[in-house]
Amino acid sequence: MNLDVVMNLDVVLIPGITAEIADPIKTEKETLMTNEELFLAVALNAWKGNIERADKMFSGLSEEELLKEVAPGKNRLIYLWGHLTATHDAMLPLLGLGRRRHPEFDVVFISNPDKTQAGVPSAELVRKAWVEVNARLFEGIASISAADWLKKHAAVSEEDFLKEPLRNRLAILLSRTNHLAYHLGQTALRPK
Amino acid sequence: MNLDVVMNLDVVLIPGITAEIADPIKTEKETLMTNEELFLAVALNAWKGNIERADKMFSGLSEEELLKEVAPGKNRLIYLWGHLTATHDAMLPLLGLGRRRHPEFDVVFISNPDKTQAGVPSAELVRKAWVEVNARLFEGIASISAADWLKKHAAVSEEDFLKEPLRNRLAILLSRTNHLAYHLGQTALRPK
Repeated sequence: MNLDVVMNLDVVLIPGITAEIADPIKTEKETLMTNEELFLAVALNAWKGNIERADKMFSGLSEEELLKEVAPGKNRLIYLWGHLTATHDAMLPLLGLGRRRHPEFDVVFISNPDKTQAGVPSAELVRKAWVEVNARLFEGIASISAADWLKKHAAVSEEDFLKEPLRNRLAILLSRTNHLAYHLGQTALRPK
Repeated sequence: MNLDVVMNLDVVLIPGITAEIADPIKTEKETLMTNEELFLAVALNAWKGNIERADKMFSGLSEEELLKEVAPGKNRLIYLWGHLTATHDAMLPLLGLGRRRHPEFDVVFISNPDKTQAGVPSAELVRKAWVEVNARLFEGIASISAADWLKKHAAVSEEDFLKEPLRNRLAILLSRTNHLAYHLGQTALRPK
């Protein structure tokens, strides 16, 4: 069991270097890529690799398994799935990609701890929202040019951004990739 | 307890935008930064933010606490600390920053699961190695130019790198940042 947990990490150690993920990017742009495009491609690969991994893991769980806690007394898997969906949904306005699809997820999956709210969305609703939100994100992310990733995100003012130019859209992408990895680590501890 | 776990994530959501971390980079280079330098600065901030967070968490644990499992039957905290140290140590040759400092950690903390090896290094030895390895990495990382982050890492051949240009040093930095976040997520589940 312990070795399982360690072996899983290898996937995290090399996110996005599988042919399926890297190929579309390379095929389209290999000979044209500037350095900033290469920087961005590596960051996007890490995002995609972690999304695919989470998608495979959560989608492979039964409704019953989703209601289990990752460790005794800790968050249930359905909560983490909803929490990640709500976090990614909030990336849409942060990155200037339009309105949120599921703002109603916040009260259940972000502002309040697990097991305190009545009316938690069903596994099927969370699954649908996860697919919808990440599809919209992929589409929107692909439309942002390398240079535009360095523009401010929506939660920082123009004035603050002048003083703190690293509070840009790229910082959102990297921190949400880390956030996803953080919770993936927790899901790896679930009883199997 | 659940809310603790969720609240912790806010730190992951905004790694490296604290003044302490961002200031040195801005002060030195704010007016001179090219786009590729800005891309790199965001990636380095994420790395530093997660290292500082892990450092604070592990350093705050007593020897007794380090011997506890993060969840029943799972890895002990000392194992995760050693595992991260060994992983970061291996980044030195991968990034062309010199030889490993603690190759002997691999057999205990990477190739084998927790609780199977005799002679696990003491908490004090792990602590020293963690500090030494990360200090060496910080120093080395600061010496790599933005463009050089896009060069191949040491574990990929010249031939393969021509076909897969995203297997560069930056990919190592981002994947190890994710790896660190992955285990930080697990440590947040420890009994407190």
